[in-house]
Amino acid sequence: MSKIYLDDIPLKEARNRLEEKIKAAGLGRILGIDRLSLDENLVGRILAETLWAKISSPHYHASAMDGFAVKSGQTHGALETAPITLNYGDDTFYLDTGDPLPEWADAVIPIENVEPVGAHGETASDPRQPNAIQIRAAVSPWAHVREMGEDMVATQLVLPHGHKLKPVDLGAAAGAGYDTLEVARRPRVAVIPTGTELVYPGDPLQAGDIIEYNSIVLAAQVKEWGGQATRFENTPDDYQRIKSEVEKAAKDHDLVLLVAGSSAGSEDYSARIVEECGELLVHGVAVRPGHPVILGMVKGEDTDTPIVGVPGYPVSAALTAEIFVEPLLAKWLGRARAQPEELTASITRKVNSSAGDDEFLRVAVGYLGEKALAAPLSRGSGVITSLVRADGLVVIPRGVQGLQAGDPVKVRLYRSRDQLEKTIFAIGSHDLTLDLLAQFLSVHQRRLTSVNVGSMGGIMALKKGETHLAGSHLLDPDSGEYNLTYIKQHIPEIPLRVVTLVGRTQGLFMAKGNPKSIQGLEDLNRQDLSFVNRQYGAGTRLLLDYHLGELGISSESVNGYSHEEYTHLGAAAVVASGRADCALGIEAASYALNLDFLPLFSERYDLLIPEEYAQSDLLAPLLELLEDQTFRKAVSERPGYDVSQMGQVVK
Amino acid sequence: MSKIYLDDIPLKEARNRLEEKIKAAGLGRILGIDRLSLDENLVGRILAETLWAKISSPHYHASAMDGFAVKSGQTHGALETAPITLNYGDDTFYLDTGDPLPEWADAVIPIENVEPVGAHGETASDPRQPNAIQIRAAVSPWAHVREMGEDMVATQLVLPHGHKLKPVDLGAAAGAGYDTLEVARRPRVAVIPTGTELVYPGDPLQAGDIIEYNSIVLAAQVKEWGGQATRFENTPDDYQRIKSEVEKAAKDHDLVLLVAGSSAGSEDYSARIVEECGELLVHGVAVRPGHPVILGMVKGEDTDTPIVGVPGYPVSAALTAEIFVEPLLAKWLGRARAQPEELTASITRKVNSSAGDDEFLRVAVGYLGEKALAAPLSRGSGVITSLVRADGLVVIPRGVQGLQAGDPVKVRLYRSRDQLEKTIFAIGSHDLTLDLLAQFLSVHQRRLTSVNVGSMGGIMALKKGETHLAGSHLLDPDSGEYNLTYIKQHIPEIPLRVVTLVGRTQGLFMAKGNPKSIQGLEDLNRQDLSFVNRQYGAGTRLLLDYHLGELGISSESVNGYSHEEYTHLGAAAVVASGRADCALGIEAASYALNLDFLPLFSERYDLLIPEEYAQSDLLAPLLELLEDQTFRKAVSERPGYDVSQMGQVVK
Repeated sequence: MSKIYLDDIPLKEARNRLEEKIKAAGLGRILGIDRLSLDENLVGRILAETLWAKISSPHYHASAMDGFAVKSGQTHGALETAPITLNYGDDTFYLDTGDPLPEWADAVIPIENVEPVGAHGETASDPRQPNAIQIRAAVSPWAHVREMGEDMVATQLVLPHGHKLKPVDLGAAAGAGYDTLEVARRPRVAVIPTGTELVYPGDPLQAGDIIEYNSIVLAAQVKEWGGQATRFENTPDDYQRIKSEVEKAAKDHDLVLLVAGSSAGSEDYSARIVEECGELLVHGVAVRPGHPVILGMVKGEDTDTPIVGVPGYPVSAALTAEIFVEPLLAKWLGRARAQPEELTASITRKVNSSAGDDEFLRVAVGYLGEKALAAPLSRGSGVITSLVRADGLVVIPRGVQGLQAGDPVKVRLYRSRDQLEKTIFAIGSHDLTLDLLAQFLSVHQRRLTSVNVGSMGGIMALKKGETHLAGSHLLDPDSGEYNLTYIKQHIPEIPLRVVTLVGRTQGLFMAKGNPKSIQGLEDLNRQDLSFVNRQYGAGTRLLLDYHLGELGISSESVNGYSHEEYTHLGAAAVVASGRADCALGIEAASYALNLDFLPLFSERYDLLIPEEYAQSDLLAPLLELLEDQTFRKAVSERPGYDVSQMGQVVK
Repeated sequence: MSKIYLDDIPLKEARNRLEEKIKAAGLGRILGIDRLSLDENLVGRILAETLWAKISSPHYHASAMDGFAVKSGQTHGALETAPITLNYGDDTFYLDTGDPLPEWADAVIPIENVEPVGAHGETASDPRQPNAIQIRAAVSPWAHVREMGEDMVATQLVLPHGHKLKPVDLGAAAGAGYDTLEVARRPRVAVIPTGTELVYPGDPLQAGDIIEYNSIVLAAQVKEWGGQATRFENTPDDYQRIKSEVEKAAKDHDLVLLVAGSSAGSEDYSARIVEECGELLVHGVAVRPGHPVILGMVKGEDTDTPIVGVPGYPVSAALTAEIFVEPLLAKWLGRARAQPEELTASITRKVNSSAGDDEFLRVAVGYLGEKALAAPLSRGSGVITSLVRADGLVVIPRGVQGLQAGDPVKVRLYRSRDQLEKTIFAIGSHDLTLDLLAQFLSVHQRRLTSVNVGSMGGIMALKKGETHLAGSHLLDPDSGEYNLTYIKQHIPEIPLRVVTLVGRTQGLFMAKGNPKSIQGLEDLNRQDLSFVNRQYGAGTRLLLDYHLGELGISSESVNGYSHEEYTHLGAAAVVASGRADCALGIEAASYALNLDFLPLFSERYDLLIPEEYAQSDLLAPLLELLEDQTFRKAVSERPGYDVSQMGQVVK
């Protein structure tokens, strides 16, 4: 019987255990050398030799211009008014750029500075083959000559080993006399996905099936870091089969990544297999996400092969590779570790974290004026989109209990600062139109990062100065007006522009064919119905509360009123899965999940934009898009959207 | 007869002319689409479709833990003191992480939170197959369940088109239901190197031969920017042959790069060929370097093909590609243009530039404390090492006459700011030991950027606060002491640490076999000898002046006293080429160029380091290396070096 609990080995100790074993196995250095011809395929490879110039460049004195080689001494005294004539052949000779300087010459006069003379004193017909030239200015020694070694002198350092080759480096290497280069052999990494539930992308799907893509992400990471990955076929949870794959992989790879089965579940065989094939060094590391990591060595005939048991959750898998695989590849390639750029930013909200773990928190980063803000993204280890959307990682180190809103944090950036400076934060209510905006903005060199916290959450983000704009659709039941009442009440101090993005139809999502015969909100207190609600502060929830009030239905009488979802699509997904019979939301979401829709209300969805940003370069392309016919057409093609008021300035 | 003068078309206009033609030819957009299987080879490719999620992820409600599925309602009332028993099979069921939640269940209790009960009330032997479980706490609905759509909900935006794919993106695409992706076809670029003087890397070299490596650099750039390059063989300067290569290339490529021959020399055929094959749009652009650029279109049966005549000087070639080719590839791939990060820095010295041109100045960048400095590198268009060493480009725009020392400039960075923060500036006298230091430092995550301005130049750089350290070997003729006198005289105000790097042998370089029978400095006034000197402010020049004084030899009587070189190797190269008979310098340089060496003096070469930097993290690895036996051994193996005093603090 395998154990149920994992260890909680601190990250640093886990790393040390592996590093020591690797060193002991003689694997603490570059794995091998490829001697390769100098061509464009060397870009990105890591130099395994120090390049000292073998020859000088240029390797001879070369004319730097199209012009005439001369002895500079013979030009002394030439004046505008007193030209000197040099005979072609004896005293001067035409050179193209790059031609070697004759032994007798020590300077070049550019062709445009001489008067070519023909056989009879006339201007020569071919200025490059005159009988003589006249010059009207003296020239100093070595003028217009590229002296031997101008670029490189033999024996000088051209490039250090461990250097990652760029295009121009290849030119310098050729100029320094190299026609082949020694580069570090690419480490071979086997990636073995395991799990009976795995299917390949594109396979038909049953509940319980998992689309296997960890191996693709891991192989791509390995490739980016300079290694070579072999992706093995999906192997079911069968102890013997997995073991034999591991043994096979260890034979001709430098590293084995055994994906999933690294925890302590009934079909988690990785730890036992590692133990049996060699040595289990670590089972469970105190990091989040990525706790069920296995580190070990597979015993081989000649050498041992390190193995990493990679957790199956995709975020854990990708981060485990960053933490354990990248440093190993760096060592084996003889290069410095990838050093992400760091930025100090303020965290936008409180984050609890276990003091026992190093936590790797994904964040979106944007500049609000001069101030950099880091907004935490989903912490779920299954949420790969949190990595896709992440602008960087914040490490909350072991020993730290968590972060308070406003705390300064170091962000390890996944993107350049310039990209971040072109990021528009949209914190508030989410609408699918924002996704379309993001798509259209990407060609205008802007990124739209949208964080969904509901309309009221957006107003609070504006109050705290944490967003460039907020999407909002807050109905005032008294005035029937959208947004303005709430703005006046909560953020009267902020000079704000309110621009309509879109009109939307709100209504009820129901299963196809409306099996429960729902006729309207008045049915929500039926005992045979279950509802799924939106979170507190969402405009849709306010809309619901308003109309329930009108109908005299108390929230207590609505089954599922307290079951909250954060998005229209989330609520629709609950209905689609049968966990609730209906939900209130926008038409596009019902359409997305193939649900029936009962239209009830039209509402206005505005963008609230502080004036300082409304007038900024950053947001200009966004405001322009609201007038763009192609964009409007794309929005209006979605069901339930009305673009007639798009771009209207409400306030 | 071809023309001698090129046009001087402003960069912007040149770009416009090409862009208009390209648009008119229907080439102003993505060239084509590849539909490829989702695997690691897609990393770096540009999405040609917008990815909207086809399915939700997870696509079913999944257990988030190893544990027991339950109906949450049945757990209400469970207390530490009053456990509730749930029968296995009917009321609860064991799930591994990722297993689908049964229809009847709405929550999961982790295995570690239940007490498994066997058939007779004992603890179950297999905790995962009990007869019942006891629980001592209630669980809320949807606890430990990964709800359908937690990661992505069908129809939501996953990735915008034009996006460059990263490893995690491939996972998200698979999770969103994709098994193939549409990416932009890679533009095909032909690179045709021309020139009768060209030889391949590794070929034996004659004076006048040029090692062809522009095509390698250009192909590598194209590859980095997302294209696919075909390198053609070297083609001699033969009008018909080049023309037929161009026609051939245009047939199955999207862009032709015709390298060299783009100026107006006697064998520069490119412009005429472009004219004859289609249309010559631009011949000569007002940029430095890179003036002789040709832009045109080759007429084809179906479509026309743009052609760029790329200047033959390597720096011009690489920058021409950055300026004209990268934007074209961006357009054809449907991605945003590569946006280098920009940094504002102070230029360290005056730079003259023609007001008619856009000049692209290569600079080394370092942080002196908080202050970013940009030191101009060689401006020679043949000096590829200036690009290799460059940390960035400064564009001096058309209309600006030049820069004054201290001017703020925008640097387009080639390296990350973090790398620049780890850059040590060494401005002063150069020594080969600094190259070795650079090599050894590279594994300690430090870059040593060494700018050679001579010992006195280094002291001035210290005075202006422009360098972390200066190499210096300034002999005071009165005291016989090194450096201290000059420090006291010029920079008494700077708290300075003076650390000996190395002892060196200075002497005379002479051709092999000493054909002129030079016996010592006393021969320097011989009329049959020519000398090559070091620049004003160089320690070696001071040494010479001191000893000439001792010998009573006036500088006027030394042939070539005014012929200055900036480095030991430079001076040695002049002797090696026969342009001078002798030079004063260090033994290692003579050895490098296979010269005879007449040892004359021993001298001390120190590093002058302001205390603030001597105590910094940045320089710590450098100071440690001075104590490192491997480093000392590497230095002492070079001829003429004495490491016995290495690391000694003189002051």
